Amino acid sequence: MTQSKKIDARTQVCAVIGNPVEHSLSPAIHNAAFEALDLNYVYTAFKVEDLAAAMSGFRALGNFRGFSVTIPHKVAIMQYLDEVDEVTRNIGSANTVVKEDGILKGTSSDGPGALKALTDYGVEVAGRQALILGSGGAARAIAFTLATSAKPPDITILGVVPDELERLVHELRDKTPACVDGAPFDTRSLKAKVERADIIIHCTPVGMHPKIEETLITRELLRGGQAVFDIVYNPRLTRLLREAESAGCATIPGVEMFVNQAVVQFELWTGQRAPVSVMRKVVEESFGRT
Amino acid sequence: MTQSKKIDARTQVCAVIGNPVEHSLSPAIHNAAFEALDLNYVYTAFKVEDLAAAMSGFRALGNFRGFSVTIPHKVAIMQYLDEVDEVTRNIGSANTVVKEDGILKGTSSDGPGALKALTDYGVEVAGRQALILGSGGAARAIAFTLATSAKPPDITILGVVPDELERLVHELRDKTPACVDGAPFDTRSLKAKVERADIIIHCTPVGMHPKIEETLITRELLRGGQAVFDIVYNPRLTRLLREAESAGCATIPGVEMFVNQAVVQFELWTGQRAPVSVMRKVVEESFGRT
Repeated sequence: MTQSKKIDARTQVCAVIGNPVEHSLSPAIHNAAFEALDLNYVYTAFKVEDLAAAMSGFRALGNFRGFSVTIPHKVAIMQYLDEVDEVTRNIGSANTVVKEDGILKGTSSDGPGALKALTDYGVEVAGRQALILGSGGAARAIAFTLATSAKPPDITILGVVPDELERLVHELRDKTPACVDGAPFDTRSLKAKVERADIIIHCTPVGMHPKIEETLITRELLRGGQAVFDIVYNPRLTRLLREAESAGCATIPGVEMFVNQAVVQFELWTGQRAPVSVMRKVVEESFGRT
Repeated sequence: MTQSKKIDARTQVCAVIGNPVEHSLSPAIHNAAFEALDLNYVYTAFKVEDLAAAMSGFRALGNFRGFSVTIPHKVAIMQYLDEVDEVTRNIGSANTVVKEDGILKGTSSDGPGALKALTDYGVEVAGRQALILGSGGAARAIAFTLATSAKPPDITILGVVPDELERLVHELRDKTPACVDGAPFDTRSLKAKVERADIIIHCTPVGMHPKIEETLITRELLRGGQAVFDIVYNPRLTRLLREAESAGCATIPGVEMFVNQAVVQFELWTGQRAPVSVMRKVVEESFGRT
């Protein structure tokens, strides 16, 4: 009939739910991956305001296989899930739902995606000092994942929102085996903490388009041998990453977290190894256009 | 990226809901039509047991545009709709839902699909005697549509289920301007009613695969000038249609109702004129395979 993928009555449906969703790249990424492996899946997007009703529907509509969950539903989704892994429960938010035999399982793929990006770039986390800048949702997800799975000897968090920072540090200490240090972000704390860090993970919006000339850390604070991971992915090469490169650091662009959190989702939904390069290409082509 | 239709975050989603749905042809028909017109729509299938929850989800999941409703939900769906046209309300079941600005509108496309098939085959209904064999769901849908829209001078129904037949005849008389006659199906009533009919519409399962040699009407009861429409679509050429052809009748195969009810749905969901030949080709290729 046509050359395109054939969607039929057995097609498994995945989707992103959030509000807004109309600019989401997830459909393009996952559909390209489904096609690359010739899987009978399709991925769409649904704007959702009434999360309870959406989740009722997700349960009742048989061929739904999985959801990506985005703003503003990442925390609220937790109450509609039947099973949540321990790290995700500690993070307190989920971005991935899988329906298996009618059971809704939730997880956060952001932390595993970030950890996979580090590993793929040859950055060993175990035994090395990690510094996280920021204490918001992404920082929480990455910190709990590192503290639970990657076991750096200690994790330092610098944050600008005192309550949020304090809560994150407290909960990491309480719920993970990690040795955790937290401090309010300022010039002095930054200098001291960057100096002793092996891996620096930037989880704030600083440097994001359109304010692309901003950075929290400049070259003179950095040294060769450090790894700098900026989760900002637009622009691909942030000022932080450029400063880090010129200081001789290993750098990991935010697009890798973006791609790898999708890889983690894809593998949960399909049980297949994700075609990472296909997915990365979709993301890079899309960002190339902006 | 690939040659196939690109599904993105703005893609409108339509689907068939029912139980079972895994053999539904509707995804193939509608997706082929969406592609032919390059519309950003996709059509999937969802097995549904809990209809109330599924409809909550349909309301809450923003990019859902429409549902086809099949067995066992065609009657139960009525209570979840915000607006139902009068003919469909009289029929008492719907197979099509459109979401417009959050309002769920329901209709039955079976009657309009059948009427469109007749019209496309050059069969004028107004002013001509119609005989309907059967009093089940399809017969109800077609009878109410003809009685309301096509205005034959009278409609005769022959049925084998007394209560169902009586109810249909009573309701047609009560709720439409049509002059309606009903009789229990037997050799004598059949001969008499076929004799005076201009258009004969067969709405029972007789002759359906695998009992393809069965027919309620044989050649000697028919005469040239009559039109015979068999809604059985498997096999494409039923014994009834073969008898009718050899008697010199005009014949309309059931596949035309199947295609045209989908055409009616497609046009409601998209606001575009359906690519009928593309849709018919999908159906015929599929039936050719069975």
